[in-house]
Amino acid sequence: MPIVRIEMWEGRTLEQKRELVAVYTREMARITGCSETSVYVVIDDVKKQNWGAGGLLCSDKYPENN
Amino acid sequence: MPIVRIEMWEGRTLEQKRELVAVYTREMARITGCSETSVYVVIDDVKKQNWGAGGLLCSDKYPENN
Amino acid sequence: MPIVRIEMWEGRTLEQKRELVAVYTREMARITGCSETSVYVVIDDVKKQNWGAGGLLCSDKYPENN
Amino acid sequence: MPIVRIEMWEGRTLEQKRELVAVYTREMARITGCSETSVYVVIDDVKKQNWGAGGLLCSDKYPENN
Amino acid sequence: MPIVRIEMWEGRTLEQKRELVAVYTREMARITGCSETSVYVVIDDVKKQNWGAGGLLCSDKYPENN
Amino acid sequence: MPIVRIEMWEGRTLEQKRELVAVYTREMARITGCSETSVYVVIDDVKKQNWGAGGLLCSDKYPENN
Repeated sequence: MPIVRIEMWEGRTLEQKRELVAVYTREMARITGCSETSVYVVIDDVKKQNWGAGGLLCSDKYPENN
Repeated sequence: MPIVRIEMWEGRTLEQKRELVAVYTREMARITGCSETSVYVVIDDVKKQNWGAGGLLCSDKYPENN
Repeated sequence: MPIVRIEMWEGRTLEQKRELVAVYTREMARITGCSETSVYVVIDDVKKQNWGAGGLLCSDKYPENN
Repeated sequence: MPIVRIEMWEGRTLEQKRELVAVYTREMARITGCSETSVYVVIDDVKKQNWGAGGLLCSDKYPENN
Repeated sequence: MPIVRIEMWEGRTLEQKRELVAVYTREMARITGCSETSVYVVIDDVKKQNWGAGGLLCSDKYPENN
Repeated sequence: MPIVRIEMWEGRTLEQKRELVAVYTREMARITGCSETSVYVVIDDVKKQNWGAGGLLCSDKYPENN
């Protein structure tokens, strides 16, 4: 009964989230033997101004690409 | 000095959050013997499109009910 | 389908955890209308040397009481 | 630069963790277009006595299977 | 390769976040010897109505100050 | 009343944790104007076999250094 939590930059499409949830659930069940039904996946869309890497806000470091 | 973090679908009312915080804090203090003052409760309102269960996004699986 | 995560000092008994899980699940269902079956509660036992409050490690600040 | 956090029952083997990390990283990069290098995966091995489902500790509910 | 996650009330300015990320990254590298490049900092802006302290929602307890 | 959560490889000394908690609390108060008393810092010591970076377990990728 695993819980998977994903933090990533906001801006991913619904289709990308749908595929992430499907694949991560399927692979978790395949690798660990749990049932797919028991897997929860929670996605946290993080603004680039709320993510720091190497000491810089990503909104400063990567102003354009997503 | 416990921290309680609640992830649930967005859409709960202020009154429901108020009661959750009051009850969870009171019960934590009663059961563990800590002071109520030391308990933090943080609520994370999660969009149904950011929650996967059984391999499906909840926005696909439960399009109507909350 | 809420997830509740509890961080508290290690040392709570199995009976305290059992009651916390029972009460938090029941109250979540009562207050938000979700089913009890859908509630997950995850407890993280934190060592006092891994918890800081007011700038001090709790193992320094509260060497005796739990 | 996503972070993936997995909470699951303790007892998974090193080989299962290795495969989870490899597959989750590869699929994240494929689906979102990020680089594999930027993906962090953190696994939290949770004792069954620290996991509640449906109001019961998993150590009570599932005393045998893992 | 540490990950630092900050939960605080929403309303902090971009400049405050920028300084937090810079200082926390620099100090992590200085104290633990890791490289600054490997440090991720993720900020979670929490609404006062989603934060409970001492059994009360912060939106009720501190209606004015931030 | 911020909460800071640090995930890092296990093996840091008590003295390093003590300094991290002191500095992070002081800087949080200085930058955001909150009181030091209200700051909680929780450290999670993560085994290298529970941390994946770039698709590999850190226990495989960095077998020696910490």
